[in-house]
Amino acid sequence: MEKLREKIIEELIRALGDPSRILTEDFDLFSYSFDASFGVFKPDYVCQPLETAEVVSIIKLAGMYEIPVVARGTSTSLSGGPLPIKGGIVLDFSLWNTKLEIDPENLTAIVSPGVITADINEKADEFGLFYPPDPSSAHVSTIGGNLAENSGGPRGLKYGVTRDYVLGLEVVTAKGKVIRTGGSTVKNVTGFDLTNLIVGSEGTLGIITEAILRLIPKPVATKTAMVSFDDLVDSGRAISKVLRSGIMPSKMEIMDQHSIIAVEEHALLGLPTDVEAILLIELDGHPLALEKEMELVSNACMMVNARHVQVAKDDHEAAQFWRARKLVSPAIAKIKPTKISEDATVPRSKIPEMFQQLKRIREKYNLHLVVFGHAGDGNLHPNIIADARDKDEMRRAEKAVEEIFETAIRLGGTLSGEHGIGNMKSPFMEMELGKDGLHMMRLIKEAWDPQNILNPGKIFPEPGQGFELSHD
Amino acid sequence: MEKLREKIIEELIRALGDPSRILTEDFDLFSYSFDASFGVFKPDYVCQPLETAEVVSIIKLAGMYEIPVVARGTSTSLSGGPLPIKGGIVLDFSLWNTKLEIDPENLTAIVSPGVITADINEKADEFGLFYPPDPSSAHVSTIGGNLAENSGGPRGLKYGVTRDYVLGLEVVTAKGKVIRTGGSTVKNVTGFDLTNLIVGSEGTLGIITEAILRLIPKPVATKTAMVSFDDLVDSGRAISKVLRSGIMPSKMEIMDQHSIIAVEEHALLGLPTDVEAILLIELDGHPLALEKEMELVSNACMMVNARHVQVAKDDHEAAQFWRARKLVSPAIAKIKPTKISEDATVPRSKIPEMFQQLKRIREKYNLHLVVFGHAGDGNLHPNIIADARDKDEMRRAEKAVEEIFETAIRLGGTLSGEHGIGNMKSPFMEMELGKDGLHMMRLIKEAWDPQNILNPGKIFPEPGQGFELSHD
Repeated sequence: MEKLREKIIEELIRALGDPSRILTEDFDLFSYSFDASFGVFKPDYVCQPLETAEVVSIIKLAGMYEIPVVARGTSTSLSGGPLPIKGGIVLDFSLWNTKLEIDPENLTAIVSPGVITADINEKADEFGLFYPPDPSSAHVSTIGGNLAENSGGPRGLKYGVTRDYVLGLEVVTAKGKVIRTGGSTVKNVTGFDLTNLIVGSEGTLGIITEAILRLIPKPVATKTAMVSFDDLVDSGRAISKVLRSGIMPSKMEIMDQHSIIAVEEHALLGLPTDVEAILLIELDGHPLALEKEMELVSNACMMVNARHVQVAKDDHEAAQFWRARKLVSPAIAKIKPTKISEDATVPRSKIPEMFQQLKRIREKYNLHLVVFGHAGDGNLHPNIIADARDKDEMRRAEKAVEEIFETAIRLGGTLSGEHGIGNMKSPFMEMELGKDGLHMMRLIKEAWDPQNILNPGKIFPEPGQGFELSHD
Repeated sequence: MEKLREKIIEELIRALGDPSRILTEDFDLFSYSFDASFGVFKPDYVCQPLETAEVVSIIKLAGMYEIPVVARGTSTSLSGGPLPIKGGIVLDFSLWNTKLEIDPENLTAIVSPGVITADINEKADEFGLFYPPDPSSAHVSTIGGNLAENSGGPRGLKYGVTRDYVLGLEVVTAKGKVIRTGGSTVKNVTGFDLTNLIVGSEGTLGIITEAILRLIPKPVATKTAMVSFDDLVDSGRAISKVLRSGIMPSKMEIMDQHSIIAVEEHALLGLPTDVEAILLIELDGHPLALEKEMELVSNACMMVNARHVQVAKDDHEAAQFWRARKLVSPAIAKIKPTKISEDATVPRSKIPEMFQQLKRIREKYNLHLVVFGHAGDGNLHPNIIADARDKDEMRRAEKAVEEIFETAIRLGGTLSGEHGIGNMKSPFMEMELGKDGLHMMRLIKEAWDPQNILNPGKIFPEPGQGFELSHD
C-alpha cells in the first residue's frame, strides 16, 4: 500500500513538474480536511494545479488508479462540497487566480477557477460594469466554488444567481478530455445546455478550469430603506406587496427579532429590539426613478402594517443599515460556538407560513433558532446556534433541521436555495426529487463518470446514509 | 405491416379513450409533415394529448414498438425541430392549452404546453406582470415549442431568453416516467439542473407537459429611438458604445440597407433608403430615468458617426418605428418565394466584422442576402431570399449558409442563437462543439433514451449527413 502511495506521488510530481505543488504530509493534508460544514475527512494527496493540462494529467492518473478527485477553492462551503469524504486527491485551485480579463466590448469576464469572487466585481467596476452574484463569502470564496455550487446571495432577487451569469466553461471530464461549453454570446441554443448542467453539479460531473462570465452595466445609484414590523407575518406580506407594486428591489433582506437582538447586543446600532422583524430593502437604477419608487415601496409596506419606514438619507446611512444585516452571522456566532446555517427556500407567498413553522420547530426542540436571509426570493437562512459538545442539543438540532427540510418541501420549496447538497443534504434528495427524478440525475452521473472518481459521495445519497451533524 | 399499424392505432385509441384525437388518414398526416424550415416528412400517427397520463401511455407504447415520438406545437420552427424525420408518432400539443394560471404572489405562471406564448404575457399584464421572452412568432407559437427550442427574441438583450424564465418543468421521460424538475422558487440548487438541460433539448430528452415560468414586474414605460448610419460598421460600433455608457436597452435591433429598401418598397414608411443601417433602440424603466438615458444613448450614437437620431415623441410614434422592423420578414418574402432565415450569433464586438463577411458572402455567391436582427446581443438574422425551384440558386444558398456558420464560429460565435439545431444544422455540430463536446451530449441522450425514440435524427448528425436545403 505504501508502495502504491509512493508511486502515485511520484506520478503526480511528474504530472505537475513541480514537487512544491504536491502536498502529502499529514499536517498539510489535515488543513484540507474540512470546510465550513461539519465533517472532517482527510485527503490522501493535495495538488495545486495552475493550468488545464495539469488537471488533465491528474484526472487521468486518478482514473488509472481509481481514486477520487475533489476540487476545492477556499472551502467556504456550508454543505460539504469540497470535503474528500472518500479520500483521494484534493485539487486546490486557490493558487490558480491568474486570469481575470474584462472584455468591455462584449460585457464579459474570463476567469480562472481560483479568482476571488469579489475581485471580479471590483475589476468590472473599473469599466463601469457589474458582476451581480454576491454570496456573503464573496470576499474569500473563489469563483470555481461559486460555479460548482451555483452560489446565490442577496441580489438573487433581482439579478439571479451565479448560473445566470455564466456564458461558457472550459471543463475537464472524468476521462480527462477538455471540452468547452457555451461560448461568449448571450444567446446560444446549439445542443444541450452543458454549461448549466455543470454549474451547480458540485464537481461531480467535471472540473471547471475556466469560465466566461456575463457582466452588465453597473446600476447608477442605489437607495435603501429599513422597515420595521410588529408582526413577523406582516413582514412576509410586505414582500409580496412591494413586488406587486411594480418594483423589483435589488435586495430585500429580513432579520427576525432574535437576529435583531443578537446584533444589538453585539454592536449597539440602535435597532428597535421590540419589533418582530426588520426588512432591509435596496432599490437600484436611475436616481430620478429611485426617489419615486421608494415612495411606492414605503406605501406598500405601510399598507401591511409596517411600524416605521426609514429611508437612508445618503449612501453612508445606507451602509450603516446594511452593517446590521452583515453583523447577524458574527453576532449569533458569539452566543454559542456551533452555527448550523440552513438555506431551505420556499415560494415567496409561503414565507409567512414558513415563519410560523420555524417558530413551532424552535419551541418543539427547545433550540436557539434565528431567522434571517434573502426574504425577497423566499431563501431564508434559519440558523441554529448550538454547542457541538452538547450531544443532546446536537441530536435535537439534527431533528429540527430535518423538520425544516420537510416543511420547506411540503410548502412547495426546496432543500437548498444556494448552499448546495454536498454530503450533508444528500439523504433528503429523494424526498424532494422523487425516486425517478433522482434516477435521471444518477443516469447522467454514471454516463459521464462511470468510475465515480469525481467528488464521490456528494449529491447522491449513499445506501443507509442518514443526516448527521455530530459525526461521532 | 398493415396489421401492426392497425394494432398500434387500436392501442393509441385505447390510451386516449377518444378516437377523434388520433389522426391516421393520409391528408391529416400530410398537414403534420412540415414546419417553417425545409424538409417534408410524414408521421405515421398523430395524437393530440390533453393530459400527462395520455402522454405517458403513448410514450410507453412507442417504447414497446420502438417507434419515434416527436412533440409539436404550432410548428413555427425554423430548424426542423418538430419534423418526424423518421416517421412515428407526432404528439400535437396545440389543443392542450387548458392551463394558464398566473400566481401574482409568487410572480409565476403555470402553463400547459399548448398555450400560445403571447397569451402568457397578455394574461400576466392583467396583474401588472411581464413575461419577457418575445420570439417573433409569439402570437402563433406555443410555449411548449419555445421551451423545447429555448426561443429568444429582441428582448433577449436585456431580459435573456426562454430558459431564463423557467423555474420548473413536468417532463415525461423516454421510459414513461413523470418527473418534476426545479420548482417554483427562484433559487434552487438541489442536484443537477435538469430544467435547463431539458429546455432547448428539442424534445430529444423528454416531453414537457407543464412548466412553471417566472414573471417580473412590468416595466412602467418605454422609449424608442431610430438611429441611422451611413456606414454599417459604425452601427456595429454604436452597439458597444451604448452598452458601455451604462445603459442596457430592452431592445437594440438592426436593419441593413437591403432590409430598409425592401420595407420601403413594401410599405412606404418614409425610411431613409440611402443609409447603410438603421438601429432601433428601445429603453424601458421609469419615465423620469428614460428621458436622461435616451440622451446618453443619442450621444453615444453620435460619437460613432450616426447620421441622425430620431426619438419617438410618444408610444404611437414608437409603434410606427417598430412596424418597420416587423415588416422586414413579410417585405423580403415578397421578393422571392423562398426565405432562408439564419440565426448565427457572434460576440457583440465582432458584429462589424460579421457584417463585412456577410457582404463578401453575398457577393461571392451572388445571392439576395439581407441582414437584420437582434444586433444588441450579436444575434443577427442573415436571410437569403431565393426560389426553391431554382436548383442552382439553392446550391449557392447552401454553400453561403455553410460559410455563414463557419464564419460565426471562427469569430467566437455559435451556429444558432435562438432557432435551434433540429435536423438542419446537425451536420455542423462537431465544428462548433468538437468531437469530445458532442460526445458528452450524446452520452446524456443515450443514457436517458437508450432506444432513441424521442425525436430521433435531431441535434446529433447522422453518419454522412450533409447540409441540404433542397431535399431532392
